[in-house]
Amino acid sequence: MRDEFPVLDTLAYLNAGTDGPLAARAAHAAEQELGRELRDGRWQAHFERRSQLRESLRSAYASALGAEAQDVALTTSTTEGIAHVLAGLQLGPGDEILTSDEEHPGLIGALSAARELRGVSVRAVPLPDLADAVGARTRLVACCHVGWASGLLAPAALAELDVPVLLDGAQGVGAVPVDVRALGCHAYAGAGQKWLCGPDGTGMLWVSPELRERLAVTRRGYENLADPDQGLDAHVHEDARRFNTPSLSAEALACALAAFDVLESAGWQAVHEHARTLAARLAHMLAQAGREVAPRADTTLVSFASPDPQAERELLAARGVVVRSIPQRPWLRASVGAWNDERDLQRLVEALPQ
Amino acid sequence: MRDEFPVLDTLAYLNAGTDGPLAARAAHAAEQELGRELRDGRWQAHFERRSQLRESLRSAYASALGAEAQDVALTTSTTEGIAHVLAGLQLGPGDEILTSDEEHPGLIGALSAARELRGVSVRAVPLPDLADAVGARTRLVACCHVGWASGLLAPAALAELDVPVLLDGAQGVGAVPVDVRALGCHAYAGAGQKWLCGPDGTGMLWVSPELRERLAVTRRGYENLADPDQGLDAHVHEDARRFNTPSLSAEALACALAAFDVLESAGWQAVHEHARTLAARLAHMLAQAGREVAPRADTTLVSFASPDPQAERELLAARGVVVRSIPQRPWLRASVGAWNDERDLQRLVEALPQ
Repeated sequence: MRDEFPVLDTLAYLNAGTDGPLAARAAHAAEQELGRELRDGRWQAHFERRSQLRESLRSAYASALGAEAQDVALTTSTTEGIAHVLAGLQLGPGDEILTSDEEHPGLIGALSAARELRGVSVRAVPLPDLADAVGARTRLVACCHVGWASGLLAPAALAELDVPVLLDGAQGVGAVPVDVRALGCHAYAGAGQKWLCGPDGTGMLWVSPELRERLAVTRRGYENLADPDQGLDAHVHEDARRFNTPSLSAEALACALAAFDVLESAGWQAVHEHARTLAARLAHMLAQAGREVAPRADTTLVSFASPDPQAERELLAARGVVVRSIPQRPWLRASVGAWNDERDLQRLVEALPQ
Repeated sequence: MRDEFPVLDTLAYLNAGTDGPLAARAAHAAEQELGRELRDGRWQAHFERRSQLRESLRSAYASALGAEAQDVALTTSTTEGIAHVLAGLQLGPGDEILTSDEEHPGLIGALSAARELRGVSVRAVPLPDLADAVGARTRLVACCHVGWASGLLAPAALAELDVPVLLDGAQGVGAVPVDVRALGCHAYAGAGQKWLCGPDGTGMLWVSPELRERLAVTRRGYENLADPDQGLDAHVHEDARRFNTPSLSAEALACALAAFDVLESAGWQAVHEHARTLAARLAHMLAQAGREVAPRADTTLVSFASPDPQAERELLAARGVVVRSIPQRPWLRASVGAWNDERDLQRLVEALPQ
């Protein structure tokens, strides 16, 4: 599998938590679509092709979520999927959204819009305390599946709650096994460009059929309407296409599908097992090297203490090791994927200043 | 310029009102970005590159609108830009949006959301009557700049109104000269993939600084925040980036920019003049051939009567001529661009059944 990703020839690329490595097959698939569009134009056959690619990608994403394709919408980003859910609940004054203090701007932005524009209360507690913090006014729990800063997991007790749970799965789907029903959530927003190695500008939103019926469709265009020629009386699609983003290109769709295929061909169980084993190994190596590792769960992120994250990140980059720093925390974060190997980990540890 | 577009070698491609022809240079630019991402990975330099491409595309789009780059946001589609404005006005019961009976689902979807979810009244009148139909409860006039079905123009009298005007510019920008200030509108949403020949999934939203201050930012993620690390207290960008779509890929941005450059290099005045002259010529040729031409203005769309639009569209396609049918009207629509020539028009007229 490593051979599929040219960037690994030169770099210890530990950055899938931002953007995964691109596979040669995925880039080639995008180029094939561009070539077809260039030669044949973009009209009927093009739109039929795009529609087929969309349905294939919905099915692929659904299989990664343990979900039905009809319940999965295509988005440009985790951010877009989260926003559909928060806006769609149409909450107001007196309602509360419960969240954690580990959240990414993709969720925080939507929370701030709910607070500012609809008068919704937003309360943040530590991630492990979420299930116990639900109150009488809580209408939604919205938090990360896997925390972006440290790799902590949302508490399993969320599955027992009566209020709907929205998971930000940007660091989840593709990185760790996901079964939306076992997680007990009602909506799951994920990214295409991170742990699924797709192009920038791809993502997914799963919504349970039960929650879907309660969500207003706040954004609707041609893609979302079952009968777009009916004017103001047009209905949104019965299934999750009502939340599809207005326009994804054939080249982006084909690229995402080919990337997915690279991982699926290696076997998801092997992909997940290899990544988690390597990540645990890295946490151990860093501790051995005297670096404090941030509290983490059995995920693919390893954050560790750095006296000067910005400077060390640049130093590592100069030595061919790609990690990121975490704003407002004295940490560097390594993202470990199935495409990495022991040597990548060694390069990181050896490149760190003593 | 014709040589830039390989599809013109084989087809009389008259379909830019849906998707423009792709230029070889534009496809190549996307491939270059994919190659870079494949080889170098997607981390710091990649995000700096994307950011530069975004700013360049904002400037390019601004120049096509007669606007300042700081007032232009990047979107995936006309639909997305329209939705930002309609949702951002936060209208409610007692408020009215005035529209025309010539509108596309990209606008109609947003109107139906305003009506259903916020209790806003929506009133549709014939496009030429819009300015006179404004009433005491009208809070927004939202209509096409150039009508998608027939190519009619929004009435010039809209520039004199006191209420804000949102123009759906999907058939405007790139096709005809646009100067948002001269049009007297307060927001203009446009498409990247039609008359600007960019990739699917690109578009723009211009909002006047005056209206911007009145629009709530209903969708906000990392891209839209000036200080995303400030959590719930983060502020949206001062300028139109507050409305940027969450994620546009470098390959899409570079493709859109290269396409823009192909047209700009030919000179916008020449591009517009050639297209409008050819379109007028086609209208004349069709009338000569006994086809009634739909009421039109001096734009790049030519719709004409067809006894069976679906069947004739397929027959034309089989003869290498690409036009589209218009739902619920007995019309075919030809989109005439600066990349077309007299021979394309002849092929269409000759391919029509007598």
